[in-house]
Amino acid sequence: MKNLLRASFGALFILTLTACVSSSPTPVETPRNVVFLLGDGMGFAHVKAYRMYADDPSTELVDPLPVDALQVGSVSTDSIVMDCDSTALNCTRDPHGFTDSASSATAYATGKDTVVGRLSMSPSGETMTTILEGACMQGKSTGLVATSELTHASPAAFGSHVADREQAADIANQYFDNHWEEKPMVDVLLGGGLEHMQRLDRDLVSEFRQAGYEIALNRSELLSMQGEQLLGLFAPNGMPYAWDRDSETPSLAEMTQVALKSLDQNPQGFFLMIEGSEIDWAGHDKSIIGVISEMEDFISAVQVVLDFARQNRDTLVIITADHETGGMSLGRDNIYRWDPRPMNGVKATPAAMTAKYLAGEESLSAFIAENVPFELNNAEVTILDATPRDETAVRDAIIDLFNKRTLTGWSSTGHTGVDVPLYVFGPGSERFHGVMQNETIGQVLWEVFIPTEHPD
Amino acid sequence: MKNLLRASFGALFILTLTACVSSSPTPVETPRNVVFLLGDGMGFAHVKAYRMYADDPSTELVDPLPVDALQVGSVSTDSIVMDCDSTALNCTRDPHGFTDSASSATAYATGKDTVVGRLSMSPSGETMTTILEGACMQGKSTGLVATSELTHASPAAFGSHVADREQAADIANQYFDNHWEEKPMVDVLLGGGLEHMQRLDRDLVSEFRQAGYEIALNRSELLSMQGEQLLGLFAPNGMPYAWDRDSETPSLAEMTQVALKSLDQNPQGFFLMIEGSEIDWAGHDKSIIGVISEMEDFISAVQVVLDFARQNRDTLVIITADHETGGMSLGRDNIYRWDPRPMNGVKATPAAMTAKYLAGEESLSAFIAENVPFELNNAEVTILDATPRDETAVRDAIIDLFNKRTLTGWSSTGHTGVDVPLYVFGPGSERFHGVMQNETIGQVLWEVFIPTEHPD
Repeated sequence: MKNLLRASFGALFILTLTACVSSSPTPVETPRNVVFLLGDGMGFAHVKAYRMYADDPSTELVDPLPVDALQVGSVSTDSIVMDCDSTALNCTRDPHGFTDSASSATAYATGKDTVVGRLSMSPSGETMTTILEGACMQGKSTGLVATSELTHASPAAFGSHVADREQAADIANQYFDNHWEEKPMVDVLLGGGLEHMQRLDRDLVSEFRQAGYEIALNRSELLSMQGEQLLGLFAPNGMPYAWDRDSETPSLAEMTQVALKSLDQNPQGFFLMIEGSEIDWAGHDKSIIGVISEMEDFISAVQVVLDFARQNRDTLVIITADHETGGMSLGRDNIYRWDPRPMNGVKATPAAMTAKYLAGEESLSAFIAENVPFELNNAEVTILDATPRDETAVRDAIIDLFNKRTLTGWSSTGHTGVDVPLYVFGPGSERFHGVMQNETIGQVLWEVFIPTEHPD
Repeated sequence: MKNLLRASFGALFILTLTACVSSSPTPVETPRNVVFLLGDGMGFAHVKAYRMYADDPSTELVDPLPVDALQVGSVSTDSIVMDCDSTALNCTRDPHGFTDSASSATAYATGKDTVVGRLSMSPSGETMTTILEGACMQGKSTGLVATSELTHASPAAFGSHVADREQAADIANQYFDNHWEEKPMVDVLLGGGLEHMQRLDRDLVSEFRQAGYEIALNRSELLSMQGEQLLGLFAPNGMPYAWDRDSETPSLAEMTQVALKSLDQNPQGFFLMIEGSEIDWAGHDKSIIGVISEMEDFISAVQVVLDFARQNRDTLVIITADHETGGMSLGRDNIYRWDPRPMNGVKATPAAMTAKYLAGEESLSAFIAENVPFELNNAEVTILDATPRDETAVRDAIIDLFNKRTLTGWSSTGHTGVDVPLYVFGPGSERFHGVMQNETIGQVLWEVFIPTEHPD
């Protein structure tokens, strides 16, 4: 009986262990890698519009986007907004103002709020360490990938410290000059902004090359990159919208692919920030075509990262936005539908269409009729042909045509205050849930990724 | 050595068991009670606006709403929309149409999609069992609480089956006539809609009273209710907006309190559906004042339910919406702020203000100046005093004044296609996460709440 009991105990013990292993949650591991993806200006309407656009109409249910199953909450992107008089000397805090990309990206990068327009620097001017720098100081590799110029606010908040986001030359200089153990703190820089890096006063492209970075100035050069330190610059400023790029301008997904391959060579792991920068610009233009072009580019990059993270389970992926742009809505004027089909096959944004139209001789309605998958009605023809042959007027007329045809609504050409979506995947993701402030995301990211190194 | 090994085994076994108990997740329990709270027309902008309105400005951070920590994802509220010709006989499915409250509430109630306008009945006319009915057949108590008339689409989808949501008399009759074990399937009915229950052709109030229901027709009667079967009707149709109610009209929180106390007397548990019905109506009116009035009423009821669920941990709470109404946004016209302060102290909606103004002799600007916490500017005075002395015109002028002062934007007077927030609390909540379809919520709710009884 005693022996039997012991034998039972042993068996029970093994059973218990088995049950325990299978039912206990994976312990909170420190992720080796973090990829932070920012859809600049991406609100819930932008995501839903792209889901409806990308849907395969031959299947009964709407096909989910790769982010959909990963939503865990949303982000309230408030920051410190100062309400100043005309001298800009007398300022009071405005509790109801909206953030910009600089302040919001600073919150994600440092875990701390700052005033609008400032990059990883406190309201009183102290440098605030970023998660990219924290990763670098741990011996990890680091990267910034964006479709805007690399000196634009969101990537710049992770890799530089300036009082004013407009200091593009200072930001570019800091990418090279801010060193850790005798090398620049950012290993991989891919995006637009050649003219801020190669200037009359300083040629950072040469300096990076001499420091051992591989340089790419077009898609072919990008795709053949092999090293651990890369600088790729694919436009003088922001890269063209995805639908307007030529064959020598890479996609965000291609830049992402190259960045991951490069950074993953470091056995210590990496931090990579990736931005779909121009979702925001399309929102400022109230252009649904621009939004879909840039959402397609961004979500393709998200897919590349998720494929990597599913192969490399020590990778934490965070996907969110810095604020919503445009007050975008699906549905307008009491019509209960939103129709993506007027954009089917249209692989050029209104800006590119306008340039092509102005280079030709046709009437605007004749030009548009050749470039859209629907038949223009009389009212549309009248409006288009009454449009002055002027770049802004033509572009706005084309934007408006697509907004009305798709039934997209907008409340502003600026940022709005609505919360933005939060998606996470990988080890540490259980720390992100519910409605979070953007600076809380930054704080938790530090705690999860670099638990010993949080700067207070 | 052998004994030592055995002793160690024993100790290890106990340690393992302890570690296992403390680290294994709580097993998925079947909740005894479910409370399903629907903010009709409540999108992310509605929630954010109320969070900013309700915030205590003396604290540095924005105070979270009781729902904020409970967000787990969002809901895509697509349903079956038929695009019909003028005869309504030739219909094709419209994959890009938006849902209405009937079809969306049906999805939540039954786990199945149906066509717009239909209540818990399939496209071909078959009755589809609702979660309320499933709970009733399990011996649980059931309740419907709404600020609209109780025969309105959302509550009606849980307690009746009709081809057209406009069949208010049929819906009211079914609340009494649809029996299980010789009693009506809905035990607690609290809301508006007296005129649909007490009609020339049938007096359901008397019938319910004779069947043993306690009846309340005002707030005092509601608050003294004690029984397990209650009918409370506090307006001929929809109840007044919360800010326009008199002292004898209860709040949604008060109705919720009474419903919970009543239903909780059943040891088998209960299913309760609660609707903040008129968030949607305020959205149709593009009225930010109406939205804040109804969000305050709804969130107060949510707080009552969460207080109950924290005391009764076998209660699953789901809080969501059926669709967004209005294409509402915080921020308009390129101004980077949204200001709730013009609504401070304004405890009447534009409809009530209009009635009061039309009963008096003052100019509209003089009347408004006395009823708002800000000083009207010259442009506002001019617009108000040029408004015809007509109910709709005056109401719209007041709505517009508050939209502009608060910087609220709208894209439609109807429903939009943007996803709506999803909040959950309690046992089974781990089954809800990410972006879900509304019918998937209904299916998972069945699986969690009544695992043995899912009708297929």
